[in-house]
Amino acid sequence: MLSDDTIIALATPSGAGAIAVIRISGKESIALSAKHFRSVSGKNLAKQKSHTIHLGHIVDGKRVLDEVLVSLFKGPHSYTGEDVIEISCHGSPYIQQEIIQLFIRKGCRMAQAGEFTLWAFLNGKMDLSQAEAVADLISSENEASHQVAIQQMRGGFSDEIKRLREELLNFASLIELELDFSEEDIEFADRDQFKALLSRIQLVLKRLIDSFAVGNVIKNGIPVAIVGEPNVGKSTLLNALLNEDRALVSEIPGTTRDTVEDEISIGGIGFRFIDTAGIRQTQDVVEGMGIQRTFEKIDTAQVILYLIESVKFSGQGTSFKLEIEKLKSKYPQTPLVVVANKMDLLDAEGVSQIKNEIEDALLLSAKKGTGVEALKSKLLEFVNTGALRNNETLVTNSRHYNALLKALEEVEKVQWGMENGISGDLLAIDIRQALYHFGEITGEISSDDLLGNIFANFCIGK
Amino acid sequence: MLSDDTIIALATPSGAGAIAVIRISGKESIALSAKHFRSVSGKNLAKQKSHTIHLGHIVDGKRVLDEVLVSLFKGPHSYTGEDVIEISCHGSPYIQQEIIQLFIRKGCRMAQAGEFTLWAFLNGKMDLSQAEAVADLISSENEASHQVAIQQMRGGFSDEIKRLREELLNFASLIELELDFSEEDIEFADRDQFKALLSRIQLVLKRLIDSFAVGNVIKNGIPVAIVGEPNVGKSTLLNALLNEDRALVSEIPGTTRDTVEDEISIGGIGFRFIDTAGIRQTQDVVEGMGIQRTFEKIDTAQVILYLIESVKFSGQGTSFKLEIEKLKSKYPQTPLVVVANKMDLLDAEGVSQIKNEIEDALLLSAKKGTGVEALKSKLLEFVNTGALRNNETLVTNSRHYNALLKALEEVEKVQWGMENGISGDLLAIDIRQALYHFGEITGEISSDDLLGNIFANFCIGK
Repeated sequence: MLSDDTIIALATPSGAGAIAVIRISGKESIALSAKHFRSVSGKNLAKQKSHTIHLGHIVDGKRVLDEVLVSLFKGPHSYTGEDVIEISCHGSPYIQQEIIQLFIRKGCRMAQAGEFTLWAFLNGKMDLSQAEAVADLISSENEASHQVAIQQMRGGFSDEIKRLREELLNFASLIELELDFSEEDIEFADRDQFKALLSRIQLVLKRLIDSFAVGNVIKNGIPVAIVGEPNVGKSTLLNALLNEDRALVSEIPGTTRDTVEDEISIGGIGFRFIDTAGIRQTQDVVEGMGIQRTFEKIDTAQVILYLIESVKFSGQGTSFKLEIEKLKSKYPQTPLVVVANKMDLLDAEGVSQIKNEIEDALLLSAKKGTGVEALKSKLLEFVNTGALRNNETLVTNSRHYNALLKALEEVEKVQWGMENGISGDLLAIDIRQALYHFGEITGEISSDDLLGNIFANFCIGK
Repeated sequence: MLSDDTIIALATPSGAGAIAVIRISGKESIALSAKHFRSVSGKNLAKQKSHTIHLGHIVDGKRVLDEVLVSLFKGPHSYTGEDVIEISCHGSPYIQQEIIQLFIRKGCRMAQAGEFTLWAFLNGKMDLSQAEAVADLISSENEASHQVAIQQMRGGFSDEIKRLREELLNFASLIELELDFSEEDIEFADRDQFKALLSRIQLVLKRLIDSFAVGNVIKNGIPVAIVGEPNVGKSTLLNALLNEDRALVSEIPGTTRDTVEDEISIGGIGFRFIDTAGIRQTQDVVEGMGIQRTFEKIDTAQVILYLIESVKFSGQGTSFKLEIEKLKSKYPQTPLVVVANKMDLLDAEGVSQIKNEIEDALLLSAKKGTGVEALKSKLLEFVNTGALRNNETLVTNSRHYNALLKALEEVEKVQWGMENGISGDLLAIDIRQALYHFGEITGEISSDDLLGNIFANFCIGK
């Protein structure tokens, strides 16, 4: 898959900005750039040191395309491990296009999605799970997912996997060596030590597999179902929840909320709010289908917010309570928070009535902002981020999760085999199988198909 | 206006991409960055050379925000002339925001639109017309406007103005010196030489002022009115005209055509197509207002395309011809091209009929692409880009145009005064006035208001 091509792509977002960065990687990158770069001080780009920056013009014959800064990186000390040139030009899409087209005419090839990172992987600059973390990092939208991606990119996860794999590999070799001397009935591999290792591996695998529940939720946001009639103040509540963080991002347009509707970051954790219709209409048989859909949505949630209008409570309290009981019995595992909105319209009597009837009800006014902080704390309480805070490794990638499940299965087969005195050659096969799944995670084992799938999810220019 | 602030902004377009560049400029930029940058090789950023690049992490206490490349530029050898740091981070809006917010908490200030370029101007890195060219360059959408902006940014225009200003200044000093010795009736300034200089300045100013017609058109695109009924094939024609260039830009989304509807680059020149209703309905009195609007649109055009459907010609030739005559008499100065579309549906007889009746009709098939090249050549013929091809200076900025007009007025006043033996002190005032307008262009004379207006049109981060 590694080739002699020199690849080029825009590395910054498309559109007009102050500057844009065009990235070129490959054997010819420096020579080609030197040919079309006229330094202001007359320097020859090809003779400059790595990690230096040069001011000059990109020229096509007599035509000056732009005044640029060129950054020079000599392989292997570059992102891809090859020679890399980064051209920082003026941010006009026209100029970007002219420069890229010039280099394509001179022999570069347009990079495919993720191809720079693919080269970095193929050249051993990072393992596969680190490469995957690069894509996660770019799409991270809140503190928690960002922290998990950074940790994974810096090797936290794969280091642990690699260590286990090496220990297991060591034992596998010893057991395979025994097979060569099978007639002499020698044991090179200490069975007790091996059993201890297997238990340790089993423990780590189980912890990693369990962490996926939290990791996945952190990566994709915690799904919160909001049950409540229209006009009960959902949008106002979301805006009130968003308010504080919104102020922080106001200088930079196009962040968080515009991309995923109703995804809100609270205390650095992403919460994904799922709007549902109310379920009070259950008395009405013909609406059964709509209610079915509501239940399906609630099924996917990790928290249920039951939003009611305070002022309606005195009249409809019984039906509200009925519905709450229904939800609790249907979803005994999912935490439910009763939120009584518009409390600013209540008098003291109304407040105490609600508190008497639903003891853990959270009264708030989304419009005035009262009680919103209490709701935030409540939501954060439900998140088990102990692992995150302790800097423990979290699995966030379903590909890794599946490989870990398969590795665990093989490790448990080996354990069973040891207990039941299975022959060394069969044992060796299962160990190899476990090693294979470990290798899948870090990319020691990979196929073109797998790599194609992974890197197709990257943006072009990374 | 120059301050001790250290300013920061995202320099690349907002949104997600492979990488993003954050720019920091000012006295504290290096010290602040060094405090929050942990180099992978343990280097102290503050002790590194200018124009070098360093790999490491941006950290906030124990928290790692991102793995980044930091580029270091020491003033005055930087874009702004101050110390500049560019942080190339992963292109997640979340990360961009976290890094920018970190530096703002530590004492940076968010840069205003164009503020980096404003500093470059205030620090003497470029004059005002060069700074304005930076904004033009970023918004350039075709070869011609790009070339004009590049030339202006490299000083082509202001060099000429500065040369003239210096010569004039020289004479002004001599004449003012004469005033000090006025009782002795000495002439330091050779009147013949001065007259020759004034003629030369007058000539250059006139040429520059005249060039604005072309320059403005190149900057904003040449307006072409398309007159023709709906369904005559306008969209197909625009697509056919665009086709070749479109292929070139396909790899980079968000360029040219998406921003300005029906702006097309032909041979590197921007053409702005203005859709109009037909004017054939003039017989119908009640539709007078619609036709009035059509005429107003045609008024702004530099070329009129009269698009007809070939197959309808045999039946409606007379009414077509009537309309053509009407247009020609109403716009005698504006070139008119009769384009007979859908020629692929005509037989030989039909073709010769059109050619007989309208001798310069351009027959084409937008759908098949036949004749489209001929139309392109025809359109390019109308563009007087002799100046552009000869690398002659073009004025594209209406602020410069107005200053040149005023300077010319003053120069002609001086000339008149010389002819009419006006006193030296009055002459000196007019010369100073002319010098003032020259200075306005390059920014030797500027006010905070003027600078505010100019740089407000920049994007943030430039």
